[in-house]
Amino acid sequence: MIGKEVEFEGHLIDSLILSKALDTILDLEGEFEILEFRVGRKKEEHSYARLFVAGKDEEHLNKILRELHKLGAREIKPEEVELKEAEADKVLPDNFYVTTNHPTYVFYKGRWIEVEDISMDRVIAIRDDRAVCISIDEVKKGDKIVVGEKGVKVVPPERPRKYSPFQFMGGSVSSERPTEEITEIIAREMIELKKKGGRIAVVAGPAVNHTGAREALAAMIRDGYVDLLLSGNALAVHDIEASLFGTSLGMDLRTGRPVPGGNRHHLYTISKIISVGGIKRAVELGIVKDGIMYECVKNNVPFILAGSIRDDGPLPEVITDVMKAKKAMKEALRGIDMVLMLATTLHSIAVGNLLPSTVKTICVDINPATVTKLMDRGTAQAIGVVTDVGLFLPKLYEKLRELRE
Amino acid sequence: MIGKEVEFEGHLIDSLILSKALDTILDLEGEFEILEFRVGRKKEEHSYARLFVAGKDEEHLNKILRELHKLGAREIKPEEVELKEAEADKVLPDNFYVTTNHPTYVFYKGRWIEVEDISMDRVIAIRDDRAVCISIDEVKKGDKIVVGEKGVKVVPPERPRKYSPFQFMGGSVSSERPTEEITEIIAREMIELKKKGGRIAVVAGPAVNHTGAREALAAMIRDGYVDLLLSGNALAVHDIEASLFGTSLGMDLRTGRPVPGGNRHHLYTISKIISVGGIKRAVELGIVKDGIMYECVKNNVPFILAGSIRDDGPLPEVITDVMKAKKAMKEALRGIDMVLMLATTLHSIAVGNLLPSTVKTICVDINPATVTKLMDRGTAQAIGVVTDVGLFLPKLYEKLRELRE
Amino acid sequence: MIGKEVEFEGHLIDSLILSKALDTILDLEGEFEILEFRVGRKKEEHSYARLFVAGKDEEHLNKILRELHKLGAREIKPEEVELKEAEADKVLPDNFYVTTNHPTYVFYKGRWIEVEDISMDRVIAIRDDRAVCISIDEVKKGDKIVVGEKGVKVVPPERPRKYSPFQFMGGSVSSERPTEEITEIIAREMIELKKKGGRIAVVAGPAVNHTGAREALAAMIRDGYVDLLLSGNALAVHDIEASLFGTSLGMDLRTGRPVPGGNRHHLYTISKIISVGGIKRAVELGIVKDGIMYECVKNNVPFILAGSIRDDGPLPEVITDVMKAKKAMKEALRGIDMVLMLATTLHSIAVGNLLPSTVKTICVDINPATVTKLMDRGTAQAIGVVTDVGLFLPKLYEKLRELRE
Amino acid sequence: MIGKEVEFEGHLIDSLILSKALDTILDLEGEFEILEFRVGRKKEEHSYARLFVAGKDEEHLNKILRELHKLGAREIKPEEVELKEAEADKVLPDNFYVTTNHPTYVFYKGRWIEVEDISMDRVIAIRDDRAVCISIDEVKKGDKIVVGEKGVKVVPPERPRKYSPFQFMGGSVSSERPTEEITEIIAREMIELKKKGGRIAVVAGPAVNHTGAREALAAMIRDGYVDLLLSGNALAVHDIEASLFGTSLGMDLRTGRPVPGGNRHHLYTISKIISVGGIKRAVELGIVKDGIMYECVKNNVPFILAGSIRDDGPLPEVITDVMKAKKAMKEALRGIDMVLMLATTLHSIAVGNLLPSTVKTICVDINPATVTKLMDRGTAQAIGVVTDVGLFLPKLYEKLRELRE
Repeated sequence: MIGKEVEFEGHLIDSLILSKALDTILDLEGEFEILEFRVGRKKEEHSYARLFVAGKDEEHLNKILRELHKLGAREIKPEEVELKEAEADKVLPDNFYVTTNHPTYVFYKGRWIEVEDISMDRVIAIRDDRAVCISIDEVKKGDKIVVGEKGVKVVPPERPRKYSPFQFMGGSVSSERPTEEITEIIAREMIELKKKGGRIAVVAGPAVNHTGAREALAAMIRDGYVDLLLSGNALAVHDIEASLFGTSLGMDLRTGRPVPGGNRHHLYTISKIISVGGIKRAVELGIVKDGIMYECVKNNVPFILAGSIRDDGPLPEVITDVMKAKKAMKEALRGIDMVLMLATTLHSIAVGNLLPSTVKTICVDINPATVTKLMDRGTAQAIGVVTDVGLFLPKLYEKLRELRE
Repeated sequence: MIGKEVEFEGHLIDSLILSKALDTILDLEGEFEILEFRVGRKKEEHSYARLFVAGKDEEHLNKILRELHKLGAREIKPEEVELKEAEADKVLPDNFYVTTNHPTYVFYKGRWIEVEDISMDRVIAIRDDRAVCISIDEVKKGDKIVVGEKGVKVVPPERPRKYSPFQFMGGSVSSERPTEEITEIIAREMIELKKKGGRIAVVAGPAVNHTGAREALAAMIRDGYVDLLLSGNALAVHDIEASLFGTSLGMDLRTGRPVPGGNRHHLYTISKIISVGGIKRAVELGIVKDGIMYECVKNNVPFILAGSIRDDGPLPEVITDVMKAKKAMKEALRGIDMVLMLATTLHSIAVGNLLPSTVKTICVDINPATVTKLMDRGTAQAIGVVTDVGLFLPKLYEKLRELRE
Repeated sequence: MIGKEVEFEGHLIDSLILSKALDTILDLEGEFEILEFRVGRKKEEHSYARLFVAGKDEEHLNKILRELHKLGAREIKPEEVELKEAEADKVLPDNFYVTTNHPTYVFYKGRWIEVEDISMDRVIAIRDDRAVCISIDEVKKGDKIVVGEKGVKVVPPERPRKYSPFQFMGGSVSSERPTEEITEIIAREMIELKKKGGRIAVVAGPAVNHTGAREALAAMIRDGYVDLLLSGNALAVHDIEASLFGTSLGMDLRTGRPVPGGNRHHLYTISKIISVGGIKRAVELGIVKDGIMYECVKNNVPFILAGSIRDDGPLPEVITDVMKAKKAMKEALRGIDMVLMLATTLHSIAVGNLLPSTVKTICVDINPATVTKLMDRGTAQAIGVVTDVGLFLPKLYEKLRELRE
Repeated sequence: MIGKEVEFEGHLIDSLILSKALDTILDLEGEFEILEFRVGRKKEEHSYARLFVAGKDEEHLNKILRELHKLGAREIKPEEVELKEAEADKVLPDNFYVTTNHPTYVFYKGRWIEVEDISMDRVIAIRDDRAVCISIDEVKKGDKIVVGEKGVKVVPPERPRKYSPFQFMGGSVSSERPTEEITEIIAREMIELKKKGGRIAVVAGPAVNHTGAREALAAMIRDGYVDLLLSGNALAVHDIEASLFGTSLGMDLRTGRPVPGGNRHHLYTISKIISVGGIKRAVELGIVKDGIMYECVKNNVPFILAGSIRDDGPLPEVITDVMKAKKAMKEALRGIDMVLMLATTLHSIAVGNLLPSTVKTICVDINPATVTKLMDRGTAQAIGVVTDVGLFLPKLYEKLRELRE
């Protein structure tokens, strides 16, 4: 047996941190002894715990410490972070440190510095004395990559001591909730966030169009509730088709029935936009007169359209190289405070992977599996709303208008 | 080989009847020859077909004829219907005729009489010179039961030659439709039906309450859009709990979060209603002051609450014997022109089994499997709307108000 | 402000009990002070906590204490349980105590006695100096019903300190798990349980038949893995139809396609079984020669068929009064150690309501919503397996055979 | 009113072609008169119909004729196909012809030539006297693009007159089918196809790995049942991770539980494969010793990995530009006779768009919405099997072995 002392500080009990820590040790068949435990006796007080953790051998112990580390365990005296050079582009040194999506610090040159752009399942590089979180494709030969857990500190979000209706719903995926009231809670949160100067991103799938929520999303953009739109070729084409023909993939948006010859609309739309050189130009020329993309262009809301193998065309603005698209998304998401994910599994999970756990994330889908998958893939902070986006979005916009008055 | 002549009349081509008939013969490995075929050359004209159908032997031929029969095939000269007595209660004679849910006639004492209360998978009895469709549990010893297909005529519904937005949607179960517009189509249909003196039944599951659509349903009852409510103990208890406490199964209907001690509300509600003798009495005493059940009582809208093994209590009005409940439902559904099925698989299928194919049936559920099951079980006329009942019902009520003005 | 001291004992940290307790207090806007806290320093040691809890007034405090009580909080010195008489059948006294599904004790005549037949959302009556858990419909005028939390102790299940693959899976509803391996874990658990003389109940929906898992379930009954079958009329009719005709509701079980005239099979089966007087008699007479019901009769495995409003017939053994069916189910479930719920939402939730939290519960359904609903309704101990019962059950039987050898 | 004569030939009645044609005319508010109608009196005879179709004006008439055209309507005397040059890359001439996924011919230089690579929602170009079906991004400036319907003939698939168990299932998406038997029907079809020298493609999502079906797919590749694998980065990484560590995205494939530090496995795998230069090289070096990708390399089965914005890494073989990936997929799919789509919505729809309607297509998913979407998007020939791929694939392989012996 070999052991080590670690300490925890914070709302250890009501944020379940200590429980999870002891669980982890037991699951990994380690041993522990609680050396010191001071509980915050009142609401506002922090707790402190000092544990002796033991494993069968060094490797076993390190495995345990690595997991405790993610829960916020610290070494008693911080040691300098350990770095190793990448031997080639996209090649990681052995024992590389894998990030969580929680705020993270490294002890570098004698002080704690925060890791920039933190998101999950990436690595940390030190570049110009700054710690940056990068994905494997961004690793360059010679990059100094953090290895091991030494000198790395994670601060998992604490649950707020005060009750918040918004926080409360976290993790739920049931369709048996009062949808209209939940819509109001989200609207209220959005308004408060905008008042404080916060920024909101919308991630939208093509069903937003098919289900008839297009006008509501366009209105939300017009009224300033959307600071960034992330989507794909399909949404943009369907939205512009709706502007030109009143159909979405050939389906009449007033009756839900396919229009004869409607599949031509789709190709015609793509060809038309390509012929003038893109969406922005088409709006400027007055070809596209309303809708989601129109409002983005008119209101200078940036949009990123990432390519997929289902795409027809695609439109000139679509980024067909997925790695470039991902990089553009990552940069655009910097500084975003809230993300609304609307009826898209692929984009929701992709965006979830790029977000720190401190960003408020709401995932709306009629299929509970989408929400479950998002959380299974690590975006545990997401609030799932299992509902029909075609009714949800108009209702959300209605609430935004009501509450703002 | 042994054969027989049959004839078809009607919109044989555009209602797919002839196609289905030939298919059926081929599937069953029979032979056919088309002896005569006159096509309706213009929209308003009927078509006529005379076929010679052949099978390997009498049994095989009868098997084929039995299937053709369901599609409307008639013998050239009608023969008297064949009857056999039931030997005991609930025991059917051999070769009993199984009903479809289409309008059906029997050739009895030299003339065609219509079968009353037609619904699928039942049998036909002649009682007092009337033909009645009864379920197996209604069969009494000595009942004259129709056997074979001789002297029985089925008239499958023809597709209307004129386009109707309402009819159009039939059979669809996709969640990718413009929900708000579909809601408007349904509202329009309801208003037209009520203008003509039609009657509407609502079949509702407890999710109507949980998702917050309770007030919308109550308002629809108050405004005269509901002529019959079919549900179970759970809906009634949750609805009354909402009136007494503002919660549904202990969940606050304003926030969607469980109220501490909320599970007491459920039992308290049941005990309270039992103590005063039932829902009607509780409304009269002023204990229940609003909601679905309140409006039913106040507006003399009959309701049937059928028992299930999940029930707590149950409330005094609940019919705990399922066969008695089914009989009560069957009687109440007589003369209903439209049924709205809201978020309940069990009740939807049970009610579907009791309806003729001429009743307009709309099934609303967030789970596409509910709609698929309903149709698999024979309620082919149903229109499926895959959406969140918690937003659908308030929107439907809003549309009903808008359109009526 | 008004307060009271309570104590907790057990694995407070790793079973999350203390965290939940503090959470509860904060959610209800109460105050607390931790007066004493001794943590089990090693795995095998219990922890102990003494808290001072305060509320705004007596009512508020009681509300908080009621919730803490469910988590196992005890008064420092036990007081005698408080009882009140029921004024009428099915009518509860004010302030009645609502049960959890955890083992529960009442302090009656100076000692702790265990409550019999504990299950959730019921009340406790003292009858002949025994404490029994009864549902509202079992309350008789004059019954001594427990009121308030005084003298009542709940023992929530502690998470085992040792890792168990079976326990681990609890709460999961994802379809992205290695299904074959999970099947093996369940098989292993069943075999171990049978070795120890444990008893297993199966709750089965009609999809067991439609999906072709009928033979596997029959074989499991034959081999002694099933001690009780809970189902409805549909499963029994379809199973016997499969024995008589090879079809299930008219669908050929070898090809999955409807057999012409197959809907007759269903009614014929019902009529036939009714004519001989029931399932048991039909097996004895050699009419039914294989299948699920056959094996139940031949192996003396009791079965309970509860009625529903969807039933045709029903078969003579079906209990058409749902309250009687529920009572029969409750009695049959006494002493059951494990329940396999197969492809049925209604029966799963109904049975879940009748089980203590100590019974191992596995819920298999292709629709994740069924599992989610079961847990939402309080059966938190259930393990959800999202898979196709038509392949799961044959695989489970294969594993049972492999592992037993 | 303005009109035109068209003719139809084939199994007009039992393939529903005439019914659909008349429906279409009525839906579009056109008029028709049936000028001649000769029905195939016996099974083996074709039918012939000559119709006069009328519209309000030329535009209206053309709209109707365009739709009839898709159903196989021909002008009485074929006219030369009409061509127009593309004015720029990716820009279509007005009135461009949109393809179906049915076999299509153009009347060019006095004779009918078949359009190559037919798939839906594309255009037809004449290049070097050959007619080729191309997508909008393949259109080059100066390409001669078919416009209007003149001189274009579509041959929709006729339903086989002989019953085939495989064909039968088409269109079904219910989960209530005998899964094991359906698996056998598919296995039988695959064996027969391979005997005739047919080629099978597999489209697989990452759930194949997570659910434990990896070994079954690897075995099917080894045994020669797979001629092409289409997938993405995730499947390949998870498969190789399973080979290196026994985990899939850090989840132990034996227990379904996350392994501590398992998220490292994912990144480690990517880094390792990148460092040696790709999957093929890793197999050759003996680093990857089993699994799906291993068998592809060892058995020279081509694989295409298309990029997506969710990808980590990605592996060197992944095509990150989606338009290039799509082009590679299209070329690889040429000559494929059957496609098995396993647990992936995105790839299934993308591949469905690239297939002619004559390719046998089976879509396996636990979520019925995936199958519904695939068909809604035009892949109407697909057979949907709603089941758990984790049990389906091992069972399919077992059947393939049994049946081949």
